[in-house]
Amino acid sequence: MIVEYEGTWFHGFQAQGNLRTVQSVLEEALGKIFGHPARIVAAGRTDAGVHARGQVISTRCEGRIPTAHIVQAVNSILPSDVAVRSVEEVEHTFHARKSARSKVYRYYIAYGGARSPFLARYALDIDHDLITEWMVEAARHYCGRHDFTAFRAAGTGVKTSTRTVLDSRVWVEEGCFGRIVCFQVEANGFLYNMVRIMAGTLLEVGKGRIRPGQIPDIIESRDRNSAGPTLPARGLWLWEVRY
Amino acid sequence: MIVEYEGTWFHGFQAQGNLRTVQSVLEEALGKIFGHPARIVAAGRTDAGVHARGQVISTRCEGRIPTAHIVQAVNSILPSDVAVRSVEEVEHTFHARKSARSKVYRYYIAYGGARSPFLARYALDIDHDLITEWMVEAARHYCGRHDFTAFRAAGTGVKTSTRTVLDSRVWVEEGCFGRIVCFQVEANGFLYNMVRIMAGTLLEVGKGRIRPGQIPDIIESRDRNSAGPTLPARGLWLWEVRY
Repeated sequence: MIVEYEGTWFHGFQAQGNLRTVQSVLEEALGKIFGHPARIVAAGRTDAGVHARGQVISTRCEGRIPTAHIVQAVNSILPSDVAVRSVEEVEHTFHARKSARSKVYRYYIAYGGARSPFLARYALDIDHDLITEWMVEAARHYCGRHDFTAFRAAGTGVKTSTRTVLDSRVWVEEGCFGRIVCFQVEANGFLYNMVRIMAGTLLEVGKGRIRPGQIPDIIESRDRNSAGPTLPARGLWLWEVRY
Repeated sequence: MIVEYEGTWFHGFQAQGNLRTVQSVLEEALGKIFGHPARIVAAGRTDAGVHARGQVISTRCEGRIPTAHIVQAVNSILPSDVAVRSVEEVEHTFHARKSARSKVYRYYIAYGGARSPFLARYALDIDHDLITEWMVEAARHYCGRHDFTAFRAAGTGVKTSTRTVLDSRVWVEEGCFGRIVCFQVEANGFLYNMVRIMAGTLLEVGKGRIRPGQIPDIIESRDRNSAGPTLPARGLWLWEVRY
């Protein structure tokens, strides 16, 4: 299933006791539709406040509801800040997280104008101008297979911090609610807070505090302190998962 | 001042006792910035749940804050669902409502796909397809000077129900959150619920229940029962005010 949600009022994706999480809300709704308890696995366990345009979940249904009816049935009982976009039958061996080849995240930064109430929950707001050409140039330097220790939240232990960034780019969108810098990054895996730190480093570039050509040195340093700050969750979107 | 707000958590524009309204929130913030109580007049007193992209308000400031500083100062204390986009000094005779030549409203209807959590508060969601070509044709029939009694909430007494619709059009936008039908209407004035009833009538056209050519008959009838339903507030936007 491809699932979309606004992260603002969820305590992240993963079930945590009685907190309102995307997982708990989805499992409850699917349980009603399927007629038996539903357990789901997500491609990316997004944090509190992070949005998803194209989260992918896998689950097993032993009930009798036709696949074609699931979208409408589940959306009719889900709360308004989460919805299922599409459902597909897959092999038993499919696993939303383990089968994923890559994930695409976006980070939105609104800038250069009065803040918009319609972007407040979907983008970070910066009330001055940005050198976007530098950000465009800097984003390209993330591409490739690198040790991203400098872009990992301190104290989070995973075996290896080497990841392959397949695509990394910045562009400017002039929408009806103002100008937004979009940072999009695709990788075979992400370290904890990696996209938010990458975006924070690009924001430093946009402010003229880091030059685009310094990005390779920051990666090379493997030092969290040489990268930029971790930006807030609200600008982050799990955009797509590729299989 | 041009003001933008998400109407969802406001009890409409106009001050009403202790309820949270756009007027009360703005007057409180401006009072702090100006250093004296602020009273504002709005071009359109939007209802609860109605959004504004380009509401215009007029007010008097006897304080010493330079005009150029007001936007940033007031936005720094306003809650996140309302913001001032721009401020301009005007003649003492200017009145946000009385000086307006026309107002432009939009009504958004998302359709033909799974509902999106990102449009839930900004558009009406229709879970089946619409004959949009008919809606495009029907919308044009609203143009001109007509008695819009059929498009007025019952029991609301104003002297005359004749208004001049300067522009009325429908188009389809294919955005990243799905397909939306946009209805935009500009008039020298609007009756109570007029745009929401016009949109409800266009929705009946989209569903094939009313033919585009019947719109002139519905206007002519001056009968509220011959027009479509009043659509919910959440799809309605005060888009622009022209002077």
